Amino acid sequence: MAPVTNGRALFNSVPEGFPEPGKTIVYDTTETIDLDGVSLNGGFLVKTLELSVDPYMRGRMREPTKKSYSEPFAIGKPLNGHGVGVVLRSEHSDIKQGDHVYGLLQHVQYQVVKDTNMVSKCQNPANLPWSTFIGVLGMPGQTSYMAWKEYSKAQKGEVAFVSAGAGPVGSFVIQLAKLDGLRVIASAGSEEKVQFMKEIGADVAFNYKTTNTAEVLAKEGGIDIFWDNVGGETLEAALDAAHVGARFIECGMISGYNNNGTPIRNLFHVISKSLAINGFIVSRLYPKYLKEFYSEVPPLVVSGKIQHREHVWNGLDKVGEAIEAVQRGTNKAKAVIHVADE
Amino acid sequence: MAPVTNGRALFNSVPEGFPEPGKTIVYDTTETIDLDGVSLNGGFLVKTLELSVDPYMRGRMREPTKKSYSEPFAIGKPLNGHGVGVVLRSEHSDIKQGDHVYGLLQHVQYQVVKDTNMVSKCQNPANLPWSTFIGVLGMPGQTSYMAWKEYSKAQKGEVAFVSAGAGPVGSFVIQLAKLDGLRVIASAGSEEKVQFMKEIGADVAFNYKTTNTAEVLAKEGGIDIFWDNVGGETLEAALDAAHVGARFIECGMISGYNNNGTPIRNLFHVISKSLAINGFIVSRLYPKYLKEFYSEVPPLVVSGKIQHREHVWNGLDKVGEAIEAVQRGTNKAKAVIHVADE
Repeated sequence: MAPVTNGRALFNSVPEGFPEPGKTIVYDTTETIDLDGVSLNGGFLVKTLELSVDPYMRGRMREPTKKSYSEPFAIGKPLNGHGVGVVLRSEHSDIKQGDHVYGLLQHVQYQVVKDTNMVSKCQNPANLPWSTFIGVLGMPGQTSYMAWKEYSKAQKGEVAFVSAGAGPVGSFVIQLAKLDGLRVIASAGSEEKVQFMKEIGADVAFNYKTTNTAEVLAKEGGIDIFWDNVGGETLEAALDAAHVGARFIECGMISGYNNNGTPIRNLFHVISKSLAINGFIVSRLYPKYLKEFYSEVPPLVVSGKIQHREHVWNGLDKVGEAIEAVQRGTNKAKAVIHVADE
Repeated sequence: MAPVTNGRALFNSVPEGFPEPGKTIVYDTTETIDLDGVSLNGGFLVKTLELSVDPYMRGRMREPTKKSYSEPFAIGKPLNGHGVGVVLRSEHSDIKQGDHVYGLLQHVQYQVVKDTNMVSKCQNPANLPWSTFIGVLGMPGQTSYMAWKEYSKAQKGEVAFVSAGAGPVGSFVIQLAKLDGLRVIASAGSEEKVQFMKEIGADVAFNYKTTNTAEVLAKEGGIDIFWDNVGGETLEAALDAAHVGARFIECGMISGYNNNGTPIRNLFHVISKSLAINGFIVSRLYPKYLKEFYSEVPPLVVSGKIQHREHVWNGLDKVGEAIEAVQRGTNKAKAVIHVADE
């Protein structure tokens, strides 16, 4: 077979504020790949099916001299992130043609992978859509499940506040909190998202753009757990509303990702209220929880006890758009790039 | 015996910035007390010997409408705080004349106490100076010992950074960290304090007023534990210098007590470095550690394995001065008001 175009979503420039499609990320079709002939060198050839777009990716769009927990993207190279693909050819002993794989994939249509530490075989006995494995069963779901288990110390009857509650992480957390018998307050940035949060069980759901967060938390009598996806003013409101002994799970601070961070003015409450504030990188929790996650969560998804929703962009050329939407919060649910059918 | 003057240190006005002797706190000698005749109503009459002046007291000098973990001081009434006294008369079944008591005492020369939840008998088999019981064996020592045990997760060979390391809390923490086999970096605000921190074992001790904290922490290669007594820029430097998985023990933020708090600009590191930030109110740790504290710490003090130092003000009329000194950091060590000899 003749070589085919291998479309790529490239990191083109470090953004100063929000990333811009066509400037921060460009779609490139100048490369081709010979699917039958490309050398595998003991690895396997993957056709990309689904790619995840996540808030943390903003932190990777930085000057490489700045250190952080995640690798910076390289200018002129494809982005990479969590994804699912199908194996077209393999020389790897553990991976066969037709297998599906999950892990860190380049944002390209086709790629040769060698490292099964980064990309591993995807088990799907319940025949769930493959996009599930970059959402509720992937890194976002793992983030919610593992950090909730590790840090929430949830007690029945307590009150949890979940920010960005309509996203893949927040919506899962709302449902975990309800399964644990908590009262749940949840915020997001549109009426549609508020509706979704109510559907999945939030007792109080509000649009933070039209309703004052501090007033809601005060009216509800304060909080015992804060799941923070946003930082900034929402975090300040949660610090003000925290009960003594409250737990703050710091998952993200997206309000500061595109403006060099937002100062927090009332951190003294960590002392005056004996707060526990735990940040985490989900991969550090894998050794403790990954097995439990894959045994407990798929049945919850199959039975509908954990619901999830996706906002799908069709085509690798839409990566820039999806990334901007996730940073601005204009995505409607878990952002998925559907790159190709099987 | 005729009534005697009962001197009192009164809270006179809510300070806007630093408290001022003669304005924020005034000494009053208008009241008298009949030591032989005053009615005890089942309680006991205490002659105050030693009173503690601590940083947290600034938080109590507020408008009573502002909520916090500690009671506000009442305008026109005596201050109160940790202290030691001797019992002159008693109608209480557990307390005898000549007993020494420790607990929350009014800042007055003589007082009738009824509540043994607030003031209890002081055991002193090693015959240590009574001021010890408001310092290394009192609330400051308990603060260091209990929070270090609860939150440090100290591992031999790790690096701890202790701010305000010459104070009663910080100096104890330095010594606990050394006993646990850690390398210790410590900061304080005078050359005399730097010298003391070196004497008690700090590997690196510096004057934050003349040496840049961030540069010291960078040069030392980062930190695993931060004991925070000060907040503000020091906390920001510690966030920048933290290793992945570092523990922050939030004991105080005195840099913000007299200026409505200092914003923290780089809290995002709590996520990017998987930090655990624990604030605490020491009384919440008493049920778990108080017995252990009183069995383990007095021998360490007697043997000299835990050293401590005091800055003594003589007389109840010096409370205002001592309080200002503690807030400005011009005290030289644990601030003690020596009210009277036995």
